[in-house]
Amino acid sequence: MVASTEQGPFTDPVYRGAIVDLLGAIGYGEIAALERLTDDAAMAPRLSDKVALLGMATRQYAKVEPIRARLAELTDNPFAAMEPFIEAIDSFHAFTAPHDWWEALVKAYVGDGIVSDFYREISGYLDEETRALIVSTLTDEGETDFAIERLREGIAEDPRLGGRLALWGRRLMGEALTQTQHVAASREAMGEILAGTATFGGLDLAGLGEIFTRITTRHIERMASLGLEH
Amino acid sequence: MVASTEQGPFTDPVYRGAIVDLLGAIGYGEIAALERLTDDAAMAPRLSDKVALLGMATRQYAKVEPIRARLAELTDNPFAAMEPFIEAIDSFHAFTAPHDWWEALVKAYVGDGIVSDFYREISGYLDEETRALIVSTLTDEGETDFAIERLREGIAEDPRLGGRLALWGRRLMGEALTQTQHVAASREAMGEILAGTATFGGLDLAGLGEIFTRITTRHIERMASLGLEH
Repeated sequence: MVASTEQGPFTDPVYRGAIVDLLGAIGYGEIAALERLTDDAAMAPRLSDKVALLGMATRQYAKVEPIRARLAELTDNPFAAMEPFIEAIDSFHAFTAPHDWWEALVKAYVGDGIVSDFYREISGYLDEETRALIVSTLTDEGETDFAIERLREGIAEDPRLGGRLALWGRRLMGEALTQTQHVAASREAMGEILAGTATFGGLDLAGLGEIFTRITTRHIERMASLGLEH
Repeated sequence: MVASTEQGPFTDPVYRGAIVDLLGAIGYGEIAALERLTDDAAMAPRLSDKVALLGMATRQYAKVEPIRARLAELTDNPFAAMEPFIEAIDSFHAFTAPHDWWEALVKAYVGDGIVSDFYREISGYLDEETRALIVSTLTDEGETDFAIERLREGIAEDPRLGGRLALWGRRLMGEALTQTQHVAASREAMGEILAGTATFGGLDLAGLGEIFTRITTRHIERMASLGLEH
């Protein structure tokens, strides 16, 4: 594996820096997800609900180790690569702290979906090895079934809940976009990916627009799968 | 596996009830451990420290599923089997909430050690299958190395820390004993194990005394391995 840092696109320091940034952001994102989902599990109405949400939390964390290991090949200190993203990711969670169990479930499903879609889109512009690593950290089909089923149950029992959660989903999307823009503006290497440069030739401003259109479309589909309007 | 609930000691409802209680207590204990260690990780001075403590937390949680699966063979509702222990285990954690990173590490190492020793001792009086299951949930050799190394570092840097942590370790031991007694007094089946009956013939009051002597001895050894007096 180490060899792959000394040939191909990784000989370009801009590319290498951008990948370190991207993996740092993903790695800290998984750490923060464990912490926040575990906090949110305290709001579970039943012990079985709590255990299901804690299961989602620990599966997020299991994805940290492959990211850390790859960062250790690319830099001296994998944790230092994560640190620049602590503030933005913690801010996202502070601004989207759920008020109850239902908001926690929407965040676990919809919030995680937005983030996964974003990284999946970006990974399409990267080398094969990095793409495979990133895709392996994304949430698998079926992992969020628990959240979807419990939300449908809750919304069926209390129709007013639907209106509140529709607004909540919109807020999650807004905060995710805001924090992504902050990160892109403050991290040159991350901005390189998002702005499109010679290194990331496939991704120009029009391409970026298309990415956000696709992410938004999938967000609306997820909300609709819960019976909620965007 | 199901067959083993319909023969041997499991035909005795007292034995079966006691095992359901014991596994319920262990299962909820692992759930609470994930929650508390994750909370405590917020006090980590470095991101690498946080990730190490979160690693300990998620390894605890990985042990819930085998317990839940076995409880599902023995009862209709595995989570209902855990519920009687929520109050005592949550009280233990409320009375032993660490004030800083160092107290959190002592609790992760010493507190977990006491609990593991207790269940290991009890498991010696049970059927082979239950014993193997319980032993598989206990903390392995090496899993707490991180806590030991960091504590030695911290105590070497600030000798006054040692005095405070010695008292803290004593408090953890006291609270663990207190909560164990509460549980034994309030749960008839659990009391059966700890008091010794026809079903648990090997364990009488003298045997129980020896168990607590051995648990205390190992606690003192762990404190000594940190350079702390009990």
